[in-house]
Amino acid sequence: MSLLTVGSVAFDALETPFGKTDKIIGGSATYITLSASYFTKPNNLVAVVGDDFPQSMIDIFHEHGVDTQGLEIRNGEKTFFWSGKYHNDMNTRDTVEVQLNVMEHFDPVIPEAHRHSEFLMLGNTSPAIQKKVIERMAVRPKLIMLDTMNLWIDIALDDLREVLTMVDVITVNDEEARQLSGQYSLVKAAAAIQAMGPETVIIKKGEHGALLFHGPSIFFAPALPLEDVFDPTGAGDTFAGGFIGYLASTGDVSFNNMKRGLIYGSAMASFCVEKFGAERLFNLSTDEINERVAKFVKLSAFEIV
Amino acid sequence: MSLLTVGSVAFDALETPFGKTDKIIGGSATYITLSASYFTKPNNLVAVVGDDFPQSMIDIFHEHGVDTQGLEIRNGEKTFFWSGKYHNDMNTRDTVEVQLNVMEHFDPVIPEAHRHSEFLMLGNTSPAIQKKVIERMAVRPKLIMLDTMNLWIDIALDDLREVLTMVDVITVNDEEARQLSGQYSLVKAAAAIQAMGPETVIIKKGEHGALLFHGPSIFFAPALPLEDVFDPTGAGDTFAGGFIGYLASTGDVSFNNMKRGLIYGSAMASFCVEKFGAERLFNLSTDEINERVAKFVKLSAFEIV
Repeated sequence: MSLLTVGSVAFDALETPFGKTDKIIGGSATYITLSASYFTKPNNLVAVVGDDFPQSMIDIFHEHGVDTQGLEIRNGEKTFFWSGKYHNDMNTRDTVEVQLNVMEHFDPVIPEAHRHSEFLMLGNTSPAIQKKVIERMAVRPKLIMLDTMNLWIDIALDDLREVLTMVDVITVNDEEARQLSGQYSLVKAAAAIQAMGPETVIIKKGEHGALLFHGPSIFFAPALPLEDVFDPTGAGDTFAGGFIGYLASTGDVSFNNMKRGLIYGSAMASFCVEKFGAERLFNLSTDEINERVAKFVKLSAFEIV
Repeated sequence: MSLLTVGSVAFDALETPFGKTDKIIGGSATYITLSASYFTKPNNLVAVVGDDFPQSMIDIFHEHGVDTQGLEIRNGEKTFFWSGKYHNDMNTRDTVEVQLNVMEHFDPVIPEAHRHSEFLMLGNTSPAIQKKVIERMAVRPKLIMLDTMNLWIDIALDDLREVLTMVDVITVNDEEARQLSGQYSLVKAAAAIQAMGPETVIIKKGEHGALLFHGPSIFFAPALPLEDVFDPTGAGDTFAGGFIGYLASTGDVSFNNMKRGLIYGSAMASFCVEKFGAERLFNLSTDEINERVAKFVKLSAFEIV
């Protein structure tokens, strides 16, 4: 089934203990659509960039079957830029610089052909924009998933709480779940967030895996233990893209299928961290993905006798 | 099959955000033997206490079928005492007071009847004592498992490395694994520790579950997401006791059986944290344990179609 992703397409400059990059392609919608491209089509993208955004990067979207008619290119303006530096433990990072540029007045225009998309992924942007996107759809999608971050909990909580009443799934990391709910226990945090609207709450714990709360049911997907994490940038978005891409490909939003989606999302995230930025998502094969998923089965399967 | 546990039997005084206790029964061997008692017999204990140690606590061991002929009671001396205070996140704690007392000159005497035990659990004591215990066995046990802590890595690394060449399984937490190996990645840390001797390395990550490295194979057991963690004291020892108790009950030390052992250990640990100290381990039923294990199955089972 069709998927529409709305979020940022950006330039990132990254520094990790393993090295540093100049401006490379980044942004939530970049990671989400590239990850989802291995599962589902049509794969629609709505975002905004400046006229400094290179055609070669748009070509990468096209090679992955991403429909970019909703990618607005604003003349005389510059693409959103973020640079960050990771600490030695790779779990924490500092933002070095942010240039909002075109994102400052982002007002997403949904192409007519995308307004009937059956799955909607709201990448991390302001809750006010996320709400506008939902209102601009021609019909209510079969499933709406939203990602957010601590910034919006700090400065736009009322807007966030409003859009949360309109979505089916929210993904947050453990600290954001605690901040949004005021609960330390993730079980209590998920219940509190469910009471705000979304029936399904996914709490990402990075190298410690992800928890899926669906109504009263809980499922846990481990992260793959890796020898090295080269660059964690975009891992959460890649996870979200694999999850919703898999759901869209099957059209099945049952709890059992969401479990599988969580595993596919975790597998995609485990690729993402192996190289800088989104590079590892450019050339994956179905075999590689299936082999990676088989590792998750081996890692967590046991039989009680 | 028979299990022998050597470690501490102690008094603890605990303070958590939920309350505080006076002196209650604690110590690594206490948690290990109580947890293992739900799985295997004979369940032999070697430890030392002072004459201040109450008969009522020894009765609790007997009610659980623990053979206490190796529990030395030293007249005119006092039992090992530890008090600690947990921070609000329950993941970190401060030691408030330690009185070594009888543990200062602990020289474990293994009763003749215990020297043929088929499974040997070396609870957290000095590596020198752990080595003595192995040397005092009449025959080399089928499986020797060792727990240790940062203190011994700091002050007795040579002794620890020596005893590591003599054991099959080591359990450490993630920080200890990193400290012992000098590797941040847990995959690399486990490989480095395996190279020191033990074929099997279990890395405990508390609320984030546990990793089992067995030769080149990896298995991950999640922790049960809980609404409240009341007191984490002894959870690691309870986990170890459930693991080795399950292995001893089956006599099977294969990787597949160790996976089950990890789940049983995790289930036992999930009980332990529900009340202060070892209290929750005093009166469990087989039904309760099986129900808890079923929750782990539900939490982590998925099917790729």
